[in-house]
Amino acid sequence: MAGRGVAERRLLRVGPGGEARRARDRLAVEEPLELRVAGRPVGVTMRTPGNDVELAIGYCISEQLVARPDDIEAVRFCAPEGQAQEFNVLSVDLRPGVPVPDPSLDRLAVTSSSCGVCGKASIEAVTVTCPSLAGDGLSVASGVLATIPDRVREAQRVFEQTGGLHAAAVCGPDGDVRCVREDVGRHNAVDKVIGWAATERRLPLTGTVLFVSGRCSFEVVQKAAVAGVALVAAVSAPSSLAVELAEQVGMTLVGFLRGDTMNVYTHPHRVTLPAQAPGEVRPPAPAPA
Amino acid sequence: MAGRGVAERRLLRVGPGGEARRARDRLAVEEPLELRVAGRPVGVTMRTPGNDVELAIGYCISEQLVARPDDIEAVRFCAPEGQAQEFNVLSVDLRPGVPVPDPSLDRLAVTSSSCGVCGKASIEAVTVTCPSLAGDGLSVASGVLATIPDRVREAQRVFEQTGGLHAAAVCGPDGDVRCVREDVGRHNAVDKVIGWAATERRLPLTGTVLFVSGRCSFEVVQKAAVAGVALVAAVSAPSSLAVELAEQVGMTLVGFLRGDTMNVYTHPHRVTLPAQAPGEVRPPAPAPA
Repeated sequence: MAGRGVAERRLLRVGPGGEARRARDRLAVEEPLELRVAGRPVGVTMRTPGNDVELAIGYCISEQLVARPDDIEAVRFCAPEGQAQEFNVLSVDLRPGVPVPDPSLDRLAVTSSSCGVCGKASIEAVTVTCPSLAGDGLSVASGVLATIPDRVREAQRVFEQTGGLHAAAVCGPDGDVRCVREDVGRHNAVDKVIGWAATERRLPLTGTVLFVSGRCSFEVVQKAAVAGVALVAAVSAPSSLAVELAEQVGMTLVGFLRGDTMNVYTHPHRVTLPAQAPGEVRPPAPAPA
Repeated sequence: MAGRGVAERRLLRVGPGGEARRARDRLAVEEPLELRVAGRPVGVTMRTPGNDVELAIGYCISEQLVARPDDIEAVRFCAPEGQAQEFNVLSVDLRPGVPVPDPSLDRLAVTSSSCGVCGKASIEAVTVTCPSLAGDGLSVASGVLATIPDRVREAQRVFEQTGGLHAAAVCGPDGDVRCVREDVGRHNAVDKVIGWAATERRLPLTGTVLFVSGRCSFEVVQKAAVAGVALVAAVSAPSSLAVELAEQVGMTLVGFLRGDTMNVYTHPHRVTLPAQAPGEVRPPAPAPA
């Protein structure tokens, strides 16, 4: 994360008993980013500056504005006419012949115009465009999953400094962190890792785990499914619709990944457990010396 | 929160040492809500069903699609033509003569077309339309602020059941919880309490505290400022832009409100501390017996 992602700020720190002292704190920076595709503005998101090109590419792919990374000819920062270059407008140019996405055709607009506005229709809108993940033979030990939050935390720098950032990471089946990205917006962090995978030519992300540091929403599962991720693990709770979508697309969804406990909501065959005799009740594993 | 806000789901719970057992969990429901204003779709948000009318009214006010609650003639659920009534489309009708908001005139579009895309322009877009809060004489003891997270937690039901919801609450200067609303989306929870205030004819929310259970983003501060809230208190970190906007509009912003400690980022005069002699160093208060 570049230095532009963190800002220093003076504040009053009130401690136990009400004593107050002046202090300095490091805050995650939030700045608007306008995204243009083929010259048309498609949206503005509040994001933490850093890895913006990955964010733009990841957004275009995960929201299916483009079918594949090769459809993108260039990504460039542009300054609005007559104004300073703030590095807050990113333009995605498409290759000649690539259909220009219709901004009215976003996922939820499709949902609302063709099949009614409901969770089931939102799921159908993803499944018709997204191949099933059922064939992904990924297998991860529960003990390996349990190590991922700490490994990701180690791989973060800004998080430790601000406490205010969401993280998303791509990990291998041995829990090795291959990419971690941070943002004030949960979905932006996911788009950044998907954009990283696109620029590294690693899409689809077959055989990998997507870790997210907070809750798991429908949109996180949708973006992961489009990127070909077969196992999503979140520190906090998933929503009902996130679980339903994961079930439908053949994705393993793990929530409340904390310490060495976790909930497996869907397709648990990808999470392998230590050998256990039927009916056996085992004591908790001893803490490492 | 209505029963529609929670769904039951079977899962596999993996405990310490890797033992697994089948369990049931309660998940926060996430469903799309399409909002129409004067017949035009203005957006679709993923939200937790419940208090939807408040959400729609609060959104229209906090995003300044209408100038005042009285501009709204009716709010009604409507079923898309030929489709089932899923209670996921809400139509806001305006009184005759009220100008119909131009969807292209949303806050960030304004920002990007007239003054460049940057945080400073985002702040200006709020301050030009929003009266300063500097004159709000609200004063809250730090010890009272410290009690709010627990009081809000008590006032929540769904949170305890799912662990997956954001909460927003309006509290009085004595920490009394006047309204609490929950949602899978942080901003939706804030819109729900602002919509509650509108329907209760309590806007502007002069002399009150807005509490949010997570991080504090630019949009949370923006919505609170439009609603006339002079003190926002958050359990987690604010972003840099949230702090800058609070500074500009005269709002007191408290972050990391945990136990009896907190950070006061802006306008600390509204947070009163226990009497303390200059230079005195006091021991932490004893824990209650």
